[in-house]
Amino acid sequence: MAKVPTRPRVVVIGAGFGGLQCAKELAGRPVDVLLLDRQNYHLFTPLLYQVASSLLNPSDIAMPVRAVIHGWANVRFRLADVTGVDLDARVVRTADGAEISWDWLVVAAGSRSNFFGLDSVERTAVGLKDLPDAIVIRNQVLSCFETAQWIDDVSARAPLTTFVVAGGGPTGVEYAGALSELLRLALRRDFPELDIGRSRVILVEAAERILGDFPPDLADYAAGELRRRGIEVRTGVAVTGADPSRVELSDGSAIEARTLVWAAGVLPEALAGALAAPRSAGGRIEVAPDLRIPGSERAFAIGDIAAVDQGGAVLPMIAPPAMQEGRHAAANILRAIAGEPMRPFRYRDKGLMATIGRNAGITVKGRVRLKGFLGWVAWLVIHLYYLIGFRNRMTVLFGWVWDYLRFDRPIRIIARGKRPPP
Amino acid sequence: MAKVPTRPRVVVIGAGFGGLQCAKELAGRPVDVLLLDRQNYHLFTPLLYQVASSLLNPSDIAMPVRAVIHGWANVRFRLADVTGVDLDARVVRTADGAEISWDWLVVAAGSRSNFFGLDSVERTAVGLKDLPDAIVIRNQVLSCFETAQWIDDVSARAPLTTFVVAGGGPTGVEYAGALSELLRLALRRDFPELDIGRSRVILVEAAERILGDFPPDLADYAAGELRRRGIEVRTGVAVTGADPSRVELSDGSAIEARTLVWAAGVLPEALAGALAAPRSAGGRIEVAPDLRIPGSERAFAIGDIAAVDQGGAVLPMIAPPAMQEGRHAAANILRAIAGEPMRPFRYRDKGLMATIGRNAGITVKGRVRLKGFLGWVAWLVIHLYYLIGFRNRMTVLFGWVWDYLRFDRPIRIIARGKRPPP
Repeated sequence: MAKVPTRPRVVVIGAGFGGLQCAKELAGRPVDVLLLDRQNYHLFTPLLYQVASSLLNPSDIAMPVRAVIHGWANVRFRLADVTGVDLDARVVRTADGAEISWDWLVVAAGSRSNFFGLDSVERTAVGLKDLPDAIVIRNQVLSCFETAQWIDDVSARAPLTTFVVAGGGPTGVEYAGALSELLRLALRRDFPELDIGRSRVILVEAAERILGDFPPDLADYAAGELRRRGIEVRTGVAVTGADPSRVELSDGSAIEARTLVWAAGVLPEALAGALAAPRSAGGRIEVAPDLRIPGSERAFAIGDIAAVDQGGAVLPMIAPPAMQEGRHAAANILRAIAGEPMRPFRYRDKGLMATIGRNAGITVKGRVRLKGFLGWVAWLVIHLYYLIGFRNRMTVLFGWVWDYLRFDRPIRIIARGKRPPP
Repeated sequence: MAKVPTRPRVVVIGAGFGGLQCAKELAGRPVDVLLLDRQNYHLFTPLLYQVASSLLNPSDIAMPVRAVIHGWANVRFRLADVTGVDLDARVVRTADGAEISWDWLVVAAGSRSNFFGLDSVERTAVGLKDLPDAIVIRNQVLSCFETAQWIDDVSARAPLTTFVVAGGGPTGVEYAGALSELLRLALRRDFPELDIGRSRVILVEAAERILGDFPPDLADYAAGELRRRGIEVRTGVAVTGADPSRVELSDGSAIEARTLVWAAGVLPEALAGALAAPRSAGGRIEVAPDLRIPGSERAFAIGDIAAVDQGGAVLPMIAPPAMQEGRHAAANILRAIAGEPMRPFRYRDKGLMATIGRNAGITVKGRVRLKGFLGWVAWLVIHLYYLIGFRNRMTVLFGWVWDYLRFDRPIRIIARGKRPPP
């Protein structure tokens, strides 16, 4: 006996920051929510670089979606890879052939690494966008050192202990800082015969300075801290090509390096192109002030996949706008159901933060600017606060305290799969 | 300028329980030790089933070898897959083409899953022997439930929520018990729409009773506890074939099941066959009473790969004999270097233990026999004691306490790789 749905069905594509906040806002309200994601976990991406640098376990930042939605009685989850959306027929199509109908839709499918059409880079580099990326990077860095130890020829060894990080935004800065600490604190002890001082971490940024979204004085401080920690910061130069032995730069030079970590940018998930909707220059779905997709009465787009204009500027592809948009889309759906008019979205600036490593961070929010130890503590507190789940907070906090006191990076395992996933 | 070795070089193949104890015993002594393993971590296999059942993180039971050997100044590690040993030329060959010479050799390469020549089983089943195995099982069980939730046809859904565990030794019993708890405690909440009571865990053992190495009364208690927890225990019947939809049994019946976990036995690593050495019926290297490989003056075999006879019976393939043999082989090498005669190995029985789950375990050592809550506590204490590393002990203890108090299995992430390892 099939159940007849008596309440409007809201389908949310994506259990990232935007989709999850949207579902949370709809919990306990007079709708049936179906949350779709192709992973069974919500990923706390701001700490992904700590998995990639052997500090945290994958599960510390990957919360099972079903554990998050416990207690949200009207929210269900389905593991599904959404391949298409029909805005007129109100149907979502998945890779395994299912057709899921909706009364209201929230597209929150997120973003992926942007390789800017550089095929050789896409083949060679490792992104830093999802959990498999982070595990691949961790395996790769550790494997390079294992191989390097047994190569006597210094010039043959150098590429294995040279690491290029492309992209001087917060992700690139944070990973470069964390990688440098992994090398100097932990791998120096693991590989006493290798001269870790000869290993190189090179941060490459195409713009004239790193951390372009931050005030210049904070960015300058960060660049200085990176250099003080031995990281080579090269600005005004872009990566133009790569193969497993070298990275080519726009100034015609090349760096002999086995490893290229790609944090140079993101672009919206391919699903953006599968919708009959106008898109911005960056490929994001252009939305109306109430976050609806133009031409559709009942479909919203939020987060990285949506281009949300605020006073002439499009909001950046980071978590705070996605979370606020998720709550706003939910509220607008509830307003419409209640017969009220929808409201336009207004972003409340949550500021920006980045950490360079131990005792060094930068935070800017309105007129408040913190750097150094205070900026670092602010970073720790905010990230711990936003991390979902008491247990994850405890294990991450334990990991950080351990790491800080012991100068350790404990998760130094090369976890290779031996067979394709089932 | 090549260094001239002035001290005898001991090569130890394998950083499992035997190899690691051997290297530890040689630390600080007048030898140079090279420890080889194809993984960069020592795996605490007795807790592998807890990774496979979403309780522990892989890194909780995988200690980086380099972290273990910190401070053992004369012990080095090399990540290498050993493919051959020449006992006359005193050379070890690795998969990447290296030839490593030795003055003394300890072969401690361990064992792998034994599928008894059943090709269809080997293709279908997942072993429970190494870390990738455990992660594959975790992914598989969680994926089956994700798929099952969206299948309305009860008969089509049943194979996805039916799990066959082959092998009634401690590994099979412990995994079956832990899987049953994962289903009843955590997945029941995650999948409220699925009737978890319909899911089945079936433990299949070819012998007439499970836990054949234990006294009958303890084994009977364990079988009763398993049944009380809803696990179907089928003895006197063997798995004879499998495909992704069913498991065939020796009594001509079949079980409709998508998942077959294989804990029915192990056999020595293939390296055993690559040595010019006599082998036992089970394929293990037959060794002399002093643990040397017959015909070789300076090569030892220990642990699962060696058949060590004690009073007419060959020691089982478990950790305690491997650890004692590792220490003994090291001591005999040191005796020989000092000009003293080698001594024959004598095994000191460390007893046997197994746990069925929450509050239920069995322990036997000499005349001491514990079952129920006391047997379970003894199991916990001993396993925590033998786990290497203060941090791992803390995180595992934290995990156990969390799990016990919250009835949780927190590591419920399906960690799929998206590209082949580099």
